[in-house]
Amino acid sequence: MTPAQVRTHETGPTAGLAPGYTQANLIAVPRDWAYDTLLFAQRNPKPCPILDVTDPGSPRTVLADGADLRTDVPRYRIWRDGLMTDEPADATDYWRDDLVAFLIGCSFTFESALRAAGVPLRHGRNVPMYITDRQCRPAGRLHGPLVVSLRMIPGEHVDTAVRVTALMPAVHGAPVHVGDPAAIGITALDSPDFGDRPVAEPGDVPVFWACGVTPQAALMASRPPFAITHAPGHMFVTDVQDSEYQLLQG
Amino acid sequence: MTPAQVRTHETGPTAGLAPGYTQANLIAVPRDWAYDTLLFAQRNPKPCPILDVTDPGSPRTVLADGADLRTDVPRYRIWRDGLMTDEPADATDYWRDDLVAFLIGCSFTFESALRAAGVPLRHGRNVPMYITDRQCRPAGRLHGPLVVSLRMIPGEHVDTAVRVTALMPAVHGAPVHVGDPAAIGITALDSPDFGDRPVAEPGDVPVFWACGVTPQAALMASRPPFAITHAPGHMFVTDVQDSEYQLLQG
Repeated sequence: MTPAQVRTHETGPTAGLAPGYTQANLIAVPRDWAYDTLLFAQRNPKPCPILDVTDPGSPRTVLADGADLRTDVPRYRIWRDGLMTDEPADATDYWRDDLVAFLIGCSFTFESALRAAGVPLRHGRNVPMYITDRQCRPAGRLHGPLVVSLRMIPGEHVDTAVRVTALMPAVHGAPVHVGDPAAIGITALDSPDFGDRPVAEPGDVPVFWACGVTPQAALMASRPPFAITHAPGHMFVTDVQDSEYQLLQG
Repeated sequence: MTPAQVRTHETGPTAGLAPGYTQANLIAVPRDWAYDTLLFAQRNPKPCPILDVTDPGSPRTVLADGADLRTDVPRYRIWRDGLMTDEPADATDYWRDDLVAFLIGCSFTFESALRAAGVPLRHGRNVPMYITDRQCRPAGRLHGPLVVSLRMIPGEHVDTAVRVTALMPAVHGAPVHVGDPAAIGITALDSPDFGDRPVAEPGDVPVFWACGVTPQAALMASRPPFAITHAPGHMFVTDVQDSEYQLLQG
């Protein structure tokens, strides 16, 4: 499928779809909350690497010509006062003229680079994601914990996984933690807070990357009056190639 | 000199002072202009890589414990309606409770890495800087041209200079242009818009990096009612080591 086909037709998780094209997390907040959100992202660049910010009310992004952010994400979450109130496939009825949308890098983007470097990936359509005990640096009214995604990586490939992703800071960069999940407050690896359960083989090491679901955890903790996000794993597929976000691309 | 000594005592340009410590551009604007400024930086990350943003009115930054942004820059520029009205060594009398300060990466930071990689640097205390004919992507009320810094690099070292700086995206990253100055609208290389005249040796190639003076050019073009910046070349010296901004540090 092309990126445009995924945007138009897909309703499920997007990992592995339109391979080679960058996928993005969405968070749209009222203009009054946009500065806090942008500053939160600037102060927490590993979980919140911003790829684009829209003008107030506009559903258009430079990341995909002609795309419509109100309809082109497979599944949305609607938030009121920090609580999720709906999970529609179309957000048109919820869109407001004062919404500013933030498109944030997604770790699916660096998976092409990991595969190209020979690092095997265990998971299927969605990755396991966990809320950690690490707090993000707050910004104005926004605060919340760091959320991470997990990949089980064979021990002999961990160094390659670190190097490859370190060169892609626009999509979370190097891991935030390698090894013991308890060190970052994860007590039940088999029960992720979002996404699928992890799949491991003998000799695998848990490797955790900062995750673009972190802004959703900040919404839950900070309770702005209104927000629209993607549903975890159901990303906005852009027209930008993953290689654009590699600092030393071939 | 230590970074704290430079902050306290220096009144001239800061290139080469407190070697190994990151220097930063300063732009402080009223809270009402902070969102446009932050978005301008996000949309133009090569000239405006943000290292820190302060809370409104606060002269404190996480980049240097105990430093005071009202006094610790060697020389300031005061701007009213897009015009520079004063160039004091102390900005205390101009500070306001609604000012938000942005500290932006500076190309001086990658010079340690260039030297370590064997790339000779020709200039003295300040680099030549030029206003180009390339426009930045606007953000709200802020717009303006891209400003670049120039280094004359021996032809055989240009590839190294590109690779080394590409790995430091927080301090402008890879060059925006190599070679013919006219291609980016620079007609008089010997008359820079800011800083010192270039010094070249036979076989040198002009290499241009995006420059943190770009926000000052946006102030001139966009005319916010009030702003405080550093004077070009007179940077805020932080306590952060340059190597912190290298993606693959040793």
